[in-house]
Amino acid sequence: MTRWKLILEWDGAPFMGWQRQDHGPSVQGALEQAAARMTGEQVTAYAAGRTDAGVHALAMAVHLDLAKDLTAIRLKEGLNALLRPDPVAVLAAEPVADDWHARFSCTGRRYLYRISNRRAPLTLDRGRAWRIAKPLDVGAMQEAAAHLVGRHDFTTFRSVHCQSDSPVKTLDRLEVRQVGEEIHVHAAARSFLHHQVRSMVGCLGLVGMGQWAPERMREALEARDRDALGLNAPAEGLYFAEALYEGPSA
Amino acid sequence: MTRWKLILEWDGAPFMGWQRQDHGPSVQGALEQAAARMTGEQVTAYAAGRTDAGVHALAMAVHLDLAKDLTAIRLKEGLNALLRPDPVAVLAAEPVADDWHARFSCTGRRYLYRISNRRAPLTLDRGRAWRIAKPLDVGAMQEAAAHLVGRHDFTTFRSVHCQSDSPVKTLDRLEVRQVGEEIHVHAAARSFLHHQVRSMVGCLGLVGMGQWAPERMREALEARDRDALGLNAPAEGLYFAEALYEGPSA
Repeated sequence: MTRWKLILEWDGAPFMGWQRQDHGPSVQGALEQAAARMTGEQVTAYAAGRTDAGVHALAMAVHLDLAKDLTAIRLKEGLNALLRPDPVAVLAAEPVADDWHARFSCTGRRYLYRISNRRAPLTLDRGRAWRIAKPLDVGAMQEAAAHLVGRHDFTTFRSVHCQSDSPVKTLDRLEVRQVGEEIHVHAAARSFLHHQVRSMVGCLGLVGMGQWAPERMREALEARDRDALGLNAPAEGLYFAEALYEGPSA
Repeated sequence: MTRWKLILEWDGAPFMGWQRQDHGPSVQGALEQAAARMTGEQVTAYAAGRTDAGVHALAMAVHLDLAKDLTAIRLKEGLNALLRPDPVAVLAAEPVADDWHARFSCTGRRYLYRISNRRAPLTLDRGRAWRIAKPLDVGAMQEAAAHLVGRHDFTTFRSVHCQSDSPVKTLDRLEVRQVGEEIHVHAAARSFLHHQVRSMVGCLGLVGMGQWAPERMREALEARDRDALGLNAPAEGLYFAEALYEGPSA
């Protein structure tokens, strides 16, 4: 048996999310099926983050165990061939230690959120960003973001379906950057609550549009109440960007 | 009657190209239909470049004449509402002089070609770039590109369907740049022959893959023979990036 670490990229549009579902396509299901066809084995895949429907991945770390003897390149190329036409690609594959776990060994997660700040509807970036027509005040968004960085009770920014033991998380980074007509929000933490990034970005959008003063973000945080949330940003602007691990993986 | 200049962005995937067709959707047809629905007028639209099926536009200049009295913002917003769900957006609209012509007044055209140089299939960029799995030699591509810049007979790089009077064109710029895992080719000229950019990029791809030495590009050019062409790059990596005009447009 070899435990394999994979790095996956996907377009979230056609999927119900990472997690295997009975009622629709999932990235986990697509990957497990491709691995099963390749090896004849029953395969279960684990990911660093369980993303929602519509959320994209630039580099999601995943692991799975295979008995079949394979090289990293054969596994990668074989999975990519079998994943077609699903918009999922294996960018890298490497053998790791048997106790390495994509989710539990992960010590840091990074997300990118793309806002397209323009009046015109999206064409090439349709399904790839949240379009906000009203000109955004990036300085105000940056000021608001600073209130969230650090160790806090993020109950306000947590989905009612969140399964985390505690609402207390340490947000290492929440950076708002203008990139041409887009605004990119970079978020990094050891782990996030369910919907946390989208909830934070939704409120940043309200601040940018002038509907919230930047200080309202701090008040929302301190309320520790989901009802204080202004807006949950749409899934289509969110990208799982990186999973970090400490020490050697093999 | 007001002549309007529009700047359009579109995703080329669902279209047979710019030009109106009887047998499938076109950008021109979509725009003319939206303008006709808005005004009740019969409308003909003209573009700076007549792009092929699958080719995208970041900023295509177009003009059309409308009798109906409209402000620029009403025209833009109205067209964008009526163009839905087609992936075509009007980025800007302004009234211009009656003799201003999107095609004939245009003094410069700029294209971007995106090559994605990686083994893994494309997911988020599917239909947005030409994927070349083999690692490309960007230096060799830059050397080859330099042979094409200037005034030349571009017969080798011209489609047999090209309607231009002369195969002689002046290529002002053909720049090859590495951008992360992508290679961007920037091409600029007063005008291009049909398929010229895709033909040049196809041969640059051969050079990058080591199938052609950089000097072979000069030999192909000097052959003035379509049979000397190595490869026509796929439409999906090509973007019409800018149309330039001299003097005041209004």
